[in-house]
Order: sequence, then C-alpha cells, then structure tokens
Amino acid sequence: MLRRDISYILRNKTFVPALFAKECRNYGTSYSTVHQEPPGPLIKTEIPGPKSKQLLKEMMDIQQCGSVQLFANLEKSAGNYFADADGNLFLDVYTQISSIPLGYNHPALLNAFRSDSEVRALVNRPALGVFPSDDWPKKLRDVLLSVAPPGLQHVMTMMCGACSNENAFKAAFILYCTRKRGGKTTFTDEEMKTALLNIPPGAPDLSIMSFKGLNSSGAFHGRTFGSLATTKSKAIHKLDFPSFEWPVARFPEYKYPLEEFRRENEQQDKECLADVEEQFDRWEKKRPIAGVIIEPIQAEGGDNHASPEFFQELQKICKRRGAALIIDEVQTGCGPTGKMWCHEHFNLPSPPDLVTFSKKMLTGGFYFKPEYLSPQPLRIFNTWMGDPSKLVMLEQVIKVMKTERLLQLVEETGKVLKSGLHALETEFPFMINSVRGRGTFLAFDAATPELQDKIVKTLKQNGVLGGACGICTIRLRPALIFRPKHAELFLEILRNTLRQLMSCRC
Amino acid sequence: MLRRDISYILRNKTFVPALFAKECRNYGTSYSTVHQEPPGPLIKTEIPGPKSKQLLKEMMDIQQCGSVQLFANLEKSAGNYFADADGNLFLDVYTQISSIPLGYNHPALLNAFRSDSEVRALVNRPALGVFPSDDWPKKLRDVLLSVAPPGLQHVMTMMCGACSNENAFKAAFILYCTRKRGGKTTFTDEEMKTALLNIPPGAPDLSIMSFKGLNSSGAFHGRTFGSLATTKSKAIHKLDFPSFEWPVARFPEYKYPLEEFRRENEQQDKECLADVEEQFDRWEKKRPIAGVIIEPIQAEGGDNHASPEFFQELQKICKRRGAALIIDEVQTGCGPTGKMWCHEHFNLPSPPDLVTFSKKMLTGGFYFKPEYLSPQPLRIFNTWMGDPSKLVMLEQVIKVMKTERLLQLVEETGKVLKSGLHALETEFPFMINSVRGRGTFLAFDAATPELQDKIVKTLKQNGVLGGACGICTIRLRPALIFRPKHAELFLEILRNTLRQLMSCRC
Repeated sequence: MLRRDISYILRNKTFVPALFAKECRNYGTSYSTVHQEPPGPLIKTEIPGPKSKQLLKEMMDIQQCGSVQLFANLEKSAGNYFADADGNLFLDVYTQISSIPLGYNHPALLNAFRSDSEVRALVNRPALGVFPSDDWPKKLRDVLLSVAPPGLQHVMTMMCGACSNENAFKAAFILYCTRKRGGKTTFTDEEMKTALLNIPPGAPDLSIMSFKGLNSSGAFHGRTFGSLATTKSKAIHKLDFPSFEWPVARFPEYKYPLEEFRRENEQQDKECLADVEEQFDRWEKKRPIAGVIIEPIQAEGGDNHASPEFFQELQKICKRRGAALIIDEVQTGCGPTGKMWCHEHFNLPSPPDLVTFSKKMLTGGFYFKPEYLSPQPLRIFNTWMGDPSKLVMLEQVIKVMKTERLLQLVEETGKVLKSGLHALETEFPFMINSVRGRGTFLAFDAATPELQDKIVKTLKQNGVLGGACGICTIRLRPALIFRPKHAELFLEILRNTLRQLMSCRC
Repeated sequence: MLRRDISYILRNKTFVPALFAKECRNYGTSYSTVHQEPPGPLIKTEIPGPKSKQLLKEMMDIQQCGSVQLFANLEKSAGNYFADADGNLFLDVYTQISSIPLGYNHPALLNAFRSDSEVRALVNRPALGVFPSDDWPKKLRDVLLSVAPPGLQHVMTMMCGACSNENAFKAAFILYCTRKRGGKTTFTDEEMKTALLNIPPGAPDLSIMSFKGLNSSGAFHGRTFGSLATTKSKAIHKLDFPSFEWPVARFPEYKYPLEEFRRENEQQDKECLADVEEQFDRWEKKRPIAGVIIEPIQAEGGDNHASPEFFQELQKICKRRGAALIIDEVQTGCGPTGKMWCHEHFNLPSPPDLVTFSKKMLTGGFYFKPEYLSPQPLRIFNTWMGDPSKLVMLEQVIKVMKTERLLQLVEETGKVLKSGLHALETEFPFMINSVRGRGTFLAFDAATPELQDKIVKTLKQNGVLGGACGICTIRLRPALIFRPKHAELFLEILRNTLRQLMSCRC
C-alpha cells in the first residue's frame, strides 16, 4: 500500500495528505493571493522539477551553486508555504535556514516600506558609525533594546551572524587586553608597531574557546576566518583554509529521553565542565583564552543540547577565569524556543557578557555588558555596521510577535509537535529517536546518516522542506507563525514518509 | 579679512560661498523637496550642532560611537547634499565612506520598490545558496554580469567588502590546494580530521600577501579576522586582535607631480616588484603564498597609487608563482575613477583572477575566473550569501549610470576638480601638495597630519564633508552625480578654507 502511495505520487505528480485532501481539491491550483496560505502542500512535478533544473543549469554557468535545492516563486509563497518555480507548494519547516521569522510575504512586512521615511532608510544606507540618521538612536532603543536579553542594555549592529561573532570576539579581546594593561587606554610604540605586523604584543597570541562533542559534530559560529576558527561542525566548511589553533572543549552528548538517562547526562555535564577547566589550564601559557563562545543549542552540529546547570557552571568558570562568555543566539534567538532568547531558559544568575544574533532578527549584531564598551572609537567598526532597513523590518516582526502572542504560539505549537514526534519515535523506534528541543526548535535523530538523507529527500517529495544537521539529525525550524494545524499536517506527512521508507527497506 | 570671515560664520551661524550667496538667499531655508538639490551648503549652527550633540549623547548610552560626526536628516538630504539634524546642509564629497553611488534620495532608488515583486525580494530574503528565487539567475546575469570586469563571467554575491575579500581568499586557497593535490577533489581522512582541529594538512599553513608602503600607511581590506590580517592601514584597526602572520610587500610611494619624478617613481616600481619576488621566496617554505590582494588605489591607506606597469608586472609574477591575483575594488569599483573598474585603467593582458566589490555596488561580492569555481558546493557559502534587495537597487544605479552617462560625467567633473586642485596646490604650496587620482577619485596631501585634521574640520564648518585617509591625505569621494558646478563650489570652499587656515597660522 505504501509502495502504491509512492507510485501514485510519481504517476500523478501530486501529493496531498489525506487530512487536507478535500480542502486542497476545492482549492486546486488557483491559489494566487499571497497573504492567504494554501490548505496544504501540493506536489505536481518530480522534485526538483524541470524549471528548477533549468534554472540551476543557468546558475551553474555563473557560480558553484550545487547546494541549491529549489528556486522559489515568491509571488506564490505564503506564510508557512514555500512555492517553487514548478508550481509545487511545500510546507516549510526549514524557512531559509531558520531565517524567516514571520513566514513568506507577511502583510506587516509587505507594508513596512509604504511610507517615505522607511524607503529613505532603505535607499540611503549610511555609514552608521559616522553619519547615522537622526532617528537611529531611537531605533536602536525602540527596536533592538526593546527585546534585549534581560540585563543587557548595549547593542551594536552588524551585517550577519559571522561578523557579529567576530566583533564579539574583538570586544572580548579588547577588554582582556585592557585589563592586562591595568586599565590603561593608551598603547606603547611597540604595540602599535607590532599590531601592523600581525605579531605580539600588538597582535597578541590569544584565543577564543569553542565546543565539540566527543563523537558528534560540534559548534557552528560562521565562516569568516575568525568565526570559522571556532566552527567545529563539518570538515567541508574548513578544508584548505588556514586557521587559528584555538582551544576546543567538550560539549555534552546527552542520551534521550532525558529523564531516563539523568545520571549519565549529569556525568556528561561534569566531564565537559572539567574539560573546560582543563583547557583553561592547558592554554594559559600557550595562548590564553579571552572568551568562550557557545550556542545555547548547537544547531548546525546536530541540535546538541546542554542543561541549564551546565550553562550556569560554565558562566561561573568564565567569570573566575576572566574570559568573556559569548552566547551565540544567531539561530536560537528571536523566539523559536518559546522565549525571545534561548539562554533565558537557563536561569543564569547574571546576564551573559555578549549575546550575538542574526537570521530571524534580520539584522546581525550583539548585545553586551557595559564593560565591553570599547574605550576608543573605531575599533568595533566597519563601513556600514548594519543596515537600517533591516530594523524597519525587525520593528514589524517584533510588533507582530507581541500583538499575535507568537512566543505563546511557539510554546503551544511546540507541544503539539514534540508530543507528535514522541509518538512517532515510539511507532518507528528503529528509524528515529532522541526527540528533543524547546518550543518549535525541535529535532530528532535518524538511525543512520543514510536514513537521515532519505527522510529529508522523501519529505521534500511529499511536500515538506526540512533540514538536516549534525551526523544524522533532522531539525525543525518553522517560522514563528507555525500553528498547531501546521504541526499536525507535518506530523502526518512525516508519518507517511517513515512508512514509505520502512516499506522500501523491506 | 579671513579672520572676519570666520567670526562672521560663528556670529551668524551661516556660511554661504560667495558664488552661490544670492541663489542661496532666495532659496533660504525653505528647502523641502527631497529630489531637488539646494544651491549650496548652509551652516546655521556650530558643528556639530546642539541636536547632533544630544543624539550623540543618547547613542553613547547604547554603544561606543565616538566616531559619529553628524546625524543625517534623510528627508532633507538630496543629491550631493547631506542635511544634518540641526538644519545644516553640507556638500558631501565623502558620501558615507564612498558608498552612496547616486547621492541622497535619487528618484530612481526611491521608486525602486514601488512594485510588488521588488518588495517581495526585500521582505523574503532567502538563503541564496539553497532556495533562491526564480529570477535570481537572471538578476545575476542582467545586473552583476552586465557590468563585470572585461573577461570575467562568474560572480558570487556576499554581504560586505570584508566578507567578499575573505571569500576571495577562500577561493584562492581552494584552487591552490586542489592544484597541490594534483586536481584530486577528494580529501584524505587526515585532512578531514585536521581541518576540524585547525591544523595542517587540513587547515594548511598558507598565506595571502598584501601591501604596505615603506613610510606610508598601507592596504585596507576589511576588519574581519581574515581580511584584517591583510589590512595594514592603521594600528587602531588591529590592536589587541590575534592575527595571521602573513607576508607584506612594499607598495610604491610616488612623488608628485608624476611627470617630474618619472625616474624616481619607476625606481619605486622596480624596488617594490623585487620585494614581491623576495617575499614569495622567503615565504615559500614557511607559509606559501596562495594569493596576493591589492587595491588599484590604496584608499584608506592614503590614496597611494601604482602605475599600470606595476600592476602588469605584478600579474606576471602571480601567474608565474601560481598565486591568485585578487584586485580589491571595494572602494574603487562602480565608476568613481571614470571606468566601471579602476583596474581597467591598467591594460592588464588578461583579467585579474578575482575582483572583489561592495560600497557603491550596494551588494558585496566578487567576480572570478572559471578555474576559481569551487569543485564542491558548500565551501564558499553562508546563510544569506548576499541580499537580493541590494541588486534591485544596483539595477537602478546601473541604469542611471548608463542613461545619464555618469562615467563620462565623472571624467568631465574629475578634470575640473583635478585642475582646480592643481591650481590650489600652486597657490598654497606650503599647505597642500601631491594632487593625484583618476576621475573624481582624487586626493591631495596636507603638509602635516595636524593640518590634514584642521582642513577636514574647517571644511566641515564651511559646509563640506570630506574624508581624511593615510597619514596626511584628504580624499574626495563624491557620488557619481557630482557635476562640474559642484566641483567649482567645492574648490571655492576649499580655497576659502585654506585661506582661513593660512591666516590662522600667521
């Protein structure tokens, strides 16, 4: 029967989950208003379809774009649905690598640039560190500081996640060196001269510590050379590029369900925290650690979680060692875990030193404690330092999040999604396991890397865009407007997909 | 009399150059339509004025922004005129660190997002390496490739200048290593493992060479950790940050006027090219050079020029040594030298390997030769990989450049500006010298760093925003719509400024 399902899909080039079949038939392919979501996915061609293949060929003439999966029809995409160039509609639980906060074509965003002042902010992009517009301080306050992590009241804007992390590193290095100089804010001739030669003492031999699991994939903090040095997810991200030899500590590897493996997981925390201490000792003389960067959930690395206690202890160690604790909320920030910032789940006794963001926040940047204010200007600096038009959009995103109580919705949808995934891991115990996550920032493991790949591909053929991460993980990164009905639809398609694959394996 | 000028300015808080005085009086302060330029600068307050000071105070509570000079009133800014929060109007020859191609509020840009498809490109920013929109290949062709440097037909988009340079480095490293592997596109287990540890052979000990003058300031290629390693402009950009110890070769230091010092300058070329060869030899065993990055004009470093012959020879050396020649056109690209790309002035026998861009191009990115296509996907990659909305604007910029023949205008205005500057260096030989440049991408030196600072500050008080660079240089970076009348106005204000300062020094 399941084999028949597949051949039916291939023959008819459509796939409509039973639950929505009727609604979808009435709806047909006449879907045209962008603000209205279709009732479900609709697959009319093989994936990728002929138009996507043709476009890929055209683009391959211009650049290496072998990673491109599909081409979007942005006119037809709406809400949680991604429309492709071939007329297929997908339920999108990956949302452009977790970077679309309100789904496609949200009216609040479509209308964000209706007034002249917003258009001017867009077309007159200033050098924000030299000639910002007169509403910029207010925008920083009203938009970015209105959603700042508790206890943090300072923020810098940047372009993307990688440069946000790199500038957080810079802030950590500046404070570390200023303290080492006894607070002196001037430099010696030797420091000035050697800085230009890229050698100590002006360019000191310091480091940033990041994390990697013992057996799993690890941290992802970006791909520019500084951030890439702390990225430990996949070799292909790093091969052939010179890098800084910087310390790496162990990130916990939990067993699931958590409550069944409490003792083992607590032991993981202990061992990993001991490793952090050991790294500090080991690198003290070689290349002292000025900062520690960590994701609240290692996303690219496979949705690896650590307990609130782990983060609390890590903060204590950083404080004692005089290193900055940099929380990289590039993927976790802006609501998908049910709180604005994922680290709010950790009940840290005091705010992290630096919190970086990008993706759903639409602008890059980082929040920081006042001691990380650079003593001199022009050190955390570049030409653009962000983009005011992104704050125009973010302002709308935050408004919608508040008026539509999207953090609550994330909690609510997350519950449906997570309990559904738990049911599926019980139903298909040899295929998927280790359901985990917060809010709708959820994941599960496939039994093997091959199965991970098959699930993602088959989900796509069945009308769902999902994302792989780590070694065998499948991650859900829906938009904040993902509702329980979408969760149910997704779960139904996932169930059908697993059944399909199970029967294929027989 | 000049002293009286200053006191007049301070007393009346206005400064209107004689040439435009009448027109400006009629015009008064009633200026309101954004598309129409005012007839000249208008200074009503001390600089910065009380509102700018208040805004700076507010912003200082949020971040270190000591580099902020003025706050823009974007409603009142128009064309070549920057309006500040205090109602002052400046003739802008610095244009947000050279990043405003068509001046403020150009109608073509204000209207760029009138249609739904452009708004959709703006509010649904995709992960361009995975799910680009169906018009993206066409946009790359019609917009970016339509203005590609001669001979280059491949392009990647990026976020900003720094990440464009870093990704060009990556492309250089990939080709270098692929060749070293004899073209093999697979990796050994050891390479895979060591890449994740940031050590050779997976993270090889390779380098990128950049340039610095013997006595002058040097290259600027950005501030992220990879690009910063090649930046040699000012210590304050680099202090306290760990860096890669990479080779630096000498950049020529010419004497002006060029025709008077032909022999000396040719000698500079010879010595610097010999130094390039020497660096290749010296680093061969220590940290081989995979690429050489150079600006056609070292801008941040002080508008340092090198001859076409120097660049031709440099290209030959790179070819012979198997290193990529990366031309950083972030500041010189998009027309300000009178050609779309400054390196077009150099008559290179074949295209450069990689050409990076940002600023006036509004999007970051780089053009490249086909051999720099990465053999695998996901290596030159990040979440956003640029921003389609920037191409919407760039498309308009290119259209306006063509229909209004702006490259010709740049040539024409440049001639007026340069001959005027030559006249001023003859009139004030003890104050300014070494007038140089192409198109309107012009510069001159002040006799001392102190005078450089005074000239820039006094120009501002007199209604002109100019930029300092290098040790004692003043650079002109007007928009592409800067006309001979603006050049004349600028020259008049500069002349008055120099007179003022001359009399102050007496």
